[in-house]
Amino acid sequence: MSRAWTLVSRPKGSPTMENFALRETPDQPLNDGEIRVANSFFSVDPYMRPRMDEGEDSYIAPFALNAPMTGAAVGRVVETRSDRFKVGDRVSHFLGWRDRATLRAEDALSLPDGELKDESFLDVLGAIGMTAYFGLFDVAEAKPGDVVFVSAAAGAVGSLVVQIAKLRGMTVIGSAGGTEKCDFVRGLGADHVIDYKSPGPFEDKLRAAAPDGLDVYFDNVGGEQLDAAMGIANRDARFAICGMIGMYNSDAPIGFSNLFRVISKRLQIRGFINSDFMARRSECLAQMGYWVSKGLIQSRYTTFEGLESGPEAFFSLFSGGNTGKALVHVGG
Amino acid sequence: MSRAWTLVSRPKGSPTMENFALRETPDQPLNDGEIRVANSFFSVDPYMRPRMDEGEDSYIAPFALNAPMTGAAVGRVVETRSDRFKVGDRVSHFLGWRDRATLRAEDALSLPDGELKDESFLDVLGAIGMTAYFGLFDVAEAKPGDVVFVSAAAGAVGSLVVQIAKLRGMTVIGSAGGTEKCDFVRGLGADHVIDYKSPGPFEDKLRAAAPDGLDVYFDNVGGEQLDAAMGIANRDARFAICGMIGMYNSDAPIGFSNLFRVISKRLQIRGFINSDFMARRSECLAQMGYWVSKGLIQSRYTTFEGLESGPEAFFSLFSGGNTGKALVHVGG
Repeated sequence: MSRAWTLVSRPKGSPTMENFALRETPDQPLNDGEIRVANSFFSVDPYMRPRMDEGEDSYIAPFALNAPMTGAAVGRVVETRSDRFKVGDRVSHFLGWRDRATLRAEDALSLPDGELKDESFLDVLGAIGMTAYFGLFDVAEAKPGDVVFVSAAAGAVGSLVVQIAKLRGMTVIGSAGGTEKCDFVRGLGADHVIDYKSPGPFEDKLRAAAPDGLDVYFDNVGGEQLDAAMGIANRDARFAICGMIGMYNSDAPIGFSNLFRVISKRLQIRGFINSDFMARRSECLAQMGYWVSKGLIQSRYTTFEGLESGPEAFFSLFSGGNTGKALVHVGG
Repeated sequence: MSRAWTLVSRPKGSPTMENFALRETPDQPLNDGEIRVANSFFSVDPYMRPRMDEGEDSYIAPFALNAPMTGAAVGRVVETRSDRFKVGDRVSHFLGWRDRATLRAEDALSLPDGELKDESFLDVLGAIGMTAYFGLFDVAEAKPGDVVFVSAAAGAVGSLVVQIAKLRGMTVIGSAGGTEKCDFVRGLGADHVIDYKSPGPFEDKLRAAAPDGLDVYFDNVGGEQLDAAMGIANRDARFAICGMIGMYNSDAPIGFSNLFRVISKRLQIRGFINSDFMARRSECLAQMGYWVSKGLIQSRYTTFEGLESGPEAFFSLFSGGNTGKALVHVGG
């Protein structure tokens, strides 16, 4: 038997337990070319929220109703009808939100054995790493000496951006909510940390942290922090728009007061998704793998125990209830 | 004697006659290296509105109070203490809003004699031409086959963008306000014209005009039309942000509902100003000059007669009272 979380209704605003159901299905015999994987971990991510809506505006197609949800997962092959994999091989794939996955062998990525933990491949050596690396260095064209502002800097992507920006000689300002998260970001090496929950306009706090302005903004939240970044951006600043978690659960228009500075400061604003850079994955793995192997990158994820905790892990992304990436440990 | 329009108070919201005064000053003898120019035309432009505010967010410094305002002008040299120019030479310079200008010779640009009219050098062969040319081809990276949306398409820049986009094999959608302006834009060769004053959400009208989406948006207005363009933009669309005339007279935040698509569609949004491309002016003049000489570019400007009409000409930019660039004819 395999168990999987299915979406049973589309959330209005913030998702609730009523939108999800854990369903059990018998394992069918494998077809030729298929493998079965016992997942050890799967990942829950902000981008899944728009997938729960109808419509075609998400990065990828909406989740179907009454079908298992999907997402990044890591596990070991337990059954195989493909010569690409043998039982015991470590793989990553995209059939998360479940304890056992049946998939075509070509949809699984072979992972090296060795001391690196399963979790790393869902984290700094997975999509998170691609997002931070290509977003910062390619989309935002960040270079040594730049003043870089990173929002949601205690989050999965943000905390990695802070570290790799420091590793490349940049001045880094991070924002996070609450003392604990701010301390975490400071511990990552950020030069200045802003608690966005502290009183007062965010733009004033950002200006105080960056008296010489910003050259790069790595945007994980949109809204007020994006507007503030436009307000203090230097001439020719580059904005990499990675996520707008603050905007996913609302249909209300977002107000901007500083948009005019797109012209006066010649801002360049680009949206991106890590998969845009899939063809250059090995470049990212080479650099990030080196930094990880040298102990130069810390990663702090929140692990939720058991398949049952999937929705709770997902909700925590929106309530500010965890630091770093949220993973669900389903076995192994 | 020379007469010049001075700014006597900073407008709150929309400017009024009370903000301006026409002042007369005696001509001082020229210093060595100076010339005196009798202006034939000067230009009034939307970018002058933020120059009337205090603060450092305009492209260029704010106008000083109680001093003559400035801007593009064309005229003939009437007095010279420089060997760069002789009496009768045609020049362009930046001391508009007045009938006679005294300036250093190196601040004047020599213009060819010949059949081209004085007005052209304030229009398709001046800053307007640079803005349209570099905005479309460089900032927005527009190429043959692209679907291009141009807002304020009856305006000075917009009407030129429509034409050069057609000359380069693009599908062009223009927006303008009212039947007369829309007919004008259609006459320029636009494939679809949207009357933004007609009832209904602008995004619906844009979607109907561009059923296959947009590859390029040349933005002259910001606000609702910018949001709508984000709403129907194709993957990897490029936005050249040239002006936000609808946003200059208001401090209220502008609401956006489609900003999330910056990520999902990997939009690239870049602000620019024509002077960014000053070093490549000859490239633009070569191409635009060719098109003008072949009669392939129409230009329709509104001429206001007499120096006294300066403020009225300027107000007309914001009331939608004219089509194309607004010029003030001061003599010659």
